Amino acid sequence: MIVPANPAPLSRYPPISMKNGELALIDQIRATFAHRPTPTIPLGIGDDCAILRPPPGHELLVTTDFTLEGRHFRRDLHPAASVGHRCLARGLSDLAAMGATPLAAFLSLALPAGLPTTAKGRRWIASFLEGLHTLAQSAKVTLAGGDTSQSPSDHILADIILIGTAPTGTALRRSTARPGDHIHVTGQLGGSAAELQTLLTGKRIHPTQTSPHFYPTPRLKQGLHLRSQKLATACIDLSDGLSTDLTHLCESSRVRAEIEAAALPIHPKATFNLAVNGGEDYELLFTAAPATRIPKQIAGVPITRVGTIHRASRARPQITVLNPDGTTHPLKAGGWEHFKA
Amino acid sequence: MIVPANPAPLSRYPPISMKNGELALIDQIRATFAHRPTPTIPLGIGDDCAILRPPPGHELLVTTDFTLEGRHFRRDLHPAASVGHRCLARGLSDLAAMGATPLAAFLSLALPAGLPTTAKGRRWIASFLEGLHTLAQSAKVTLAGGDTSQSPSDHILADIILIGTAPTGTALRRSTARPGDHIHVTGQLGGSAAELQTLLTGKRIHPTQTSPHFYPTPRLKQGLHLRSQKLATACIDLSDGLSTDLTHLCESSRVRAEIEAAALPIHPKATFNLAVNGGEDYELLFTAAPATRIPKQIAGVPITRVGTIHRASRARPQITVLNPDGTTHPLKAGGWEHFKA
Repeated sequence: MIVPANPAPLSRYPPISMKNGELALIDQIRATFAHRPTPTIPLGIGDDCAILRPPPGHELLVTTDFTLEGRHFRRDLHPAASVGHRCLARGLSDLAAMGATPLAAFLSLALPAGLPTTAKGRRWIASFLEGLHTLAQSAKVTLAGGDTSQSPSDHILADIILIGTAPTGTALRRSTARPGDHIHVTGQLGGSAAELQTLLTGKRIHPTQTSPHFYPTPRLKQGLHLRSQKLATACIDLSDGLSTDLTHLCESSRVRAEIEAAALPIHPKATFNLAVNGGEDYELLFTAAPATRIPKQIAGVPITRVGTIHRASRARPQITVLNPDGTTHPLKAGGWEHFKA
Repeated sequence: MIVPANPAPLSRYPPISMKNGELALIDQIRATFAHRPTPTIPLGIGDDCAILRPPPGHELLVTTDFTLEGRHFRRDLHPAASVGHRCLARGLSDLAAMGATPLAAFLSLALPAGLPTTAKGRRWIASFLEGLHTLAQSAKVTLAGGDTSQSPSDHILADIILIGTAPTGTALRRSTARPGDHIHVTGQLGGSAAELQTLLTGKRIHPTQTSPHFYPTPRLKQGLHLRSQKLATACIDLSDGLSTDLTHLCESSRVRAEIEAAALPIHPKATFNLAVNGGEDYELLFTAAPATRIPKQIAGVPITRVGTIHRASRARPQITVLNPDGTTHPLKAGGWEHFKA
């Protein structure tokens, strides 16, 4: 829990002022994410644990995701508000993939020693929290706790925990795709990777609220619709890239997949390679029985059929791409490796 | 969720082998914490989220705690098994303070690039997971998910999330102490700080399973007993030291406290200063109505009355120590500051 800060210190024995940077940070978090007791979250920040009371008849969906400076963002490339947004978006996207309704978020945050002591650092923190808060409000999720610490290095370290709910037994999984199912994706693919590629060449991008890299929109409404209308047989979010995430789905479901290259909804800024191997689109990939009528869009986001699930075969690759000229080629899991600092 | 690893990479575009270090680590975690679906955890590691189904009529208690190398442990001072044990113990102790029964744990773990490539590094990882696993088994808590990443620095970074349950409306809190209540603590105080102090002087300590610093025992049975028998009016765990944690309790409950110095159960290795200001004892401090009969021990751990709660007063310090000679002095929150690397 955020209060007490639970330091587990190794160095100094004499009593210190409790109004140190860590408590100031906790105060700032509490002020940004003001929470009054509600029926589902009767106790938020401020005790050893938060208390959650999910609605009766619901199961809980839980996911955790690191956001580490130098691995998942760079302070020179990503505005602080985008880092806060992306931190929360990663966890919300996992909830979306299961068709869950967000309930509570928990933030573990470690800051370098010098950061809170400079005006620039304090602006970074405020903007990070505001980016996280803005998305939390639009997703109707409450920050109910977490932990704070001083970072042992110059890196900002965050870990976000998301807890959502779904009626018991209804959560979407990645392991339940069946041969014959159609494969669909939400939105467009490769836009985040394309923007990142531009960034890494040294070009400046002015991030807008619709930028797929800086401000991806977790597909919560779409996941909820797929689950509640029983449209999907399986679902996964595209965080590591289509080739990697579809491989996960095929392995879990013990099936193989064929993708039609010409059908892929490639983002206008992206290439085929970025659309299949680029990560962080945070779109949903789902499968549906062939007889199921899938709407052309859900909550304003287009849905595109991109392929078909088949029975697994040792003689066939796990993912085959059907090219426009009628040829085929295997698609290997090509998710990106972490940033090497 | 641990699978997929959800990298959000910044550097390399060409496809890489998925059997990289991160997936190998996930395999190792899955093998160490083998889990079959149960009624309360029908889905553990392996999807976008884990699924939890707490018993009907129960509320959920949630806490997160960082364990960062250089802040919370040092590889040259702490055996890996102790680091794994302490990582989980921090979260379990928060559950104990609320009187919760542990249900599931989630581990976010980032390792330095070189660590998994050396035999020594692999031994460290195996031993860390084994230390965590041993305590998880004794506390009957399931590792149901998490995240893995490469650390952006040479520091091992962990964040543990604990989810527990308690019958709705019964969880103990720190904000409900009342004037007139007696103050009690479990076990002995200052032992962890005393061992750490010895360590920091350069002396070697051979850690045993009963060492308060290396292998603290979260007081889950005691917290559960206090809650289920309705013995406590308020409770907090002693992670930051008695002076700091009692200050938190007094602030939350809007009361003040008097502590009798002669009554404190000081660990044989510790001093008065370490007993009141040392952290990481992971004992419980609780308050009880004066008429409530408190057992001398709970599940084999001694319970000691150490003071009394009083109505808050601007004229009096938040915590007063009554010395054996009849004099008094104020006790300020003296929790330790983080390790300065």
